[in-house]
Amino acid sequence: MDIKDYKELVHSTLEGYFAVEIEKANYDKTIWEAMQYTTLLGGKRLRAMFCLESCRVFSGSYEQALPCACAIEMLHAQSLIHDDLPCMDNDDLRRGKPSNHKVYGEAMAVLAGDALISFGAQTIIEKTPAFVDTKVLLEVVNLYLKSAGAFGIVAGQCADIEAEKNIEKVDYEHLEYIHTYKTAALFECAILSGAMLGGANKMQLDLMKEFSYNFGLAFQAYDDILDVISNTAELGKTAGKDEKENKATFVTLFGLDYAKEKFSELILNCHDILKKAEINSDVFLQILKDMRERVS
Amino acid sequence: MDIKDYKELVHSTLEGYFAVEIEKANYDKTIWEAMQYTTLLGGKRLRAMFCLESCRVFSGSYEQALPCACAIEMLHAQSLIHDDLPCMDNDDLRRGKPSNHKVYGEAMAVLAGDALISFGAQTIIEKTPAFVDTKVLLEVVNLYLKSAGAFGIVAGQCADIEAEKNIEKVDYEHLEYIHTYKTAALFECAILSGAMLGGANKMQLDLMKEFSYNFGLAFQAYDDILDVISNTAELGKTAGKDEKENKATFVTLFGLDYAKEKFSELILNCHDILKKAEINSDVFLQILKDMRERVS
Repeated sequence: MDIKDYKELVHSTLEGYFAVEIEKANYDKTIWEAMQYTTLLGGKRLRAMFCLESCRVFSGSYEQALPCACAIEMLHAQSLIHDDLPCMDNDDLRRGKPSNHKVYGEAMAVLAGDALISFGAQTIIEKTPAFVDTKVLLEVVNLYLKSAGAFGIVAGQCADIEAEKNIEKVDYEHLEYIHTYKTAALFECAILSGAMLGGANKMQLDLMKEFSYNFGLAFQAYDDILDVISNTAELGKTAGKDEKENKATFVTLFGLDYAKEKFSELILNCHDILKKAEINSDVFLQILKDMRERVS
Repeated sequence: MDIKDYKELVHSTLEGYFAVEIEKANYDKTIWEAMQYTTLLGGKRLRAMFCLESCRVFSGSYEQALPCACAIEMLHAQSLIHDDLPCMDNDDLRRGKPSNHKVYGEAMAVLAGDALISFGAQTIIEKTPAFVDTKVLLEVVNLYLKSAGAFGIVAGQCADIEAEKNIEKVDYEHLEYIHTYKTAALFECAILSGAMLGGANKMQLDLMKEFSYNFGLAFQAYDDILDVISNTAELGKTAGKDEKENKATFVTLFGLDYAKEKFSELILNCHDILKKAEINSDVFLQILKDMRERVS
């Protein structure tokens, strides 16, 4: 499977999951449509891909990780929906389309996000093949829940809101905290759950955790850089927002050159860890290469 | 354990859970405080009580259900936080205190709700005693997730929002749908998870499910009646809102007398089911009696 195959597989699997529920829905059809809308908007499906490929490199097959990979995309969509709300980042545009609350209204967008959190976790529990050990399944669900809430994305969001109040006082430690939780946590969830479902051992999991951390920060630096060097059409979301909105990013706090240097350093670390873990994956390498090319 | 003992136990256990996390928190302390605020505001702890007592009647002990009972109170708090948001019911008051977004702001309130969903599920996974079978634990977590999202509370919320758009067309079936998901689902989660953790058999679970449905609708009728016959100070939330805001309730759609009749009928069903299930519980009987007295 290459990047394109994985992406199509994840999209069609998600489509299938939602089609079943929309077909069954009654007075609550709108909520399923709202949940589906943002989840199926597309995107690179990087998190799902990491989950599937992480499983494959340890077991030779990606299949037992497919429900989990889809769940992580739901969780990612959830964070985007709530992030775009007027009381949060107030963004009308997501992946070049109207954001969820612009289509379904704010109340429905809040609820759609809520429902995606639990539907994702349910998907892991109900759709993961029965041959997966119940204890491993429980660990994967717990990791998903940890990433979803105040030990993961929400911790990062909170630290981000606190930073905005007094942007002058934000130091590197605070910025790293934001990025570790807001961004790296979900990559960690994707990569580790894939590895766990693939049967990775303790040492392999530790290395994959290190990889996730470095990749997560690199991805955030990449995102911060693109916000400055790209336009809205290229991004599919409003460009140049970080500085306008007093966001703490590698670029706004330390400048574009620093962000690019940091990005290169982190990507290098990723390569080193892959070597150390003896992971042979064209998909991992391709993802790193694509990011390097877009930034340079 | 009587009602008062259970209530105190749940409160102090929740306090303990949050104290640990607030102590450990860093740049994300506010989110934990916001999560704690609404969860510890109080209330009758009916759902937790049902969970604990349901476990006790089938196994003689409530202890293995304590983390789950606390988790369900977190989920209940989550639904209240998001329900009170300006884009939802826009209520400034909850249990006689400023609602979550009035204290922490809208963004933090959205995030606190999100984080409570996953923290609750994590609490079940991490804090339930190790002697509980992993498969039962996974079923309980799945039931919690089902109740939290678009198969539970969120389905009811969505059906409720749809009803408001065209209140004249809402029939009994639609109203029952709203109440079944918005209210009964969480009672069902509490009662069934307690029973499952207590080792109830299939027939017992079926009866408890029937009880939950009848109790859930009775509780909603009770809530609808109190909205009309009580004042804001007695309720701890804004009274008389249902009619003003075009809410579909037993009272607004079918009148106060009908609502009272329906309430009595459902409470009678609850008693019948308890007898049929041979459940001997002073706590269950006390809860039903307290409700009857307050409404009459």
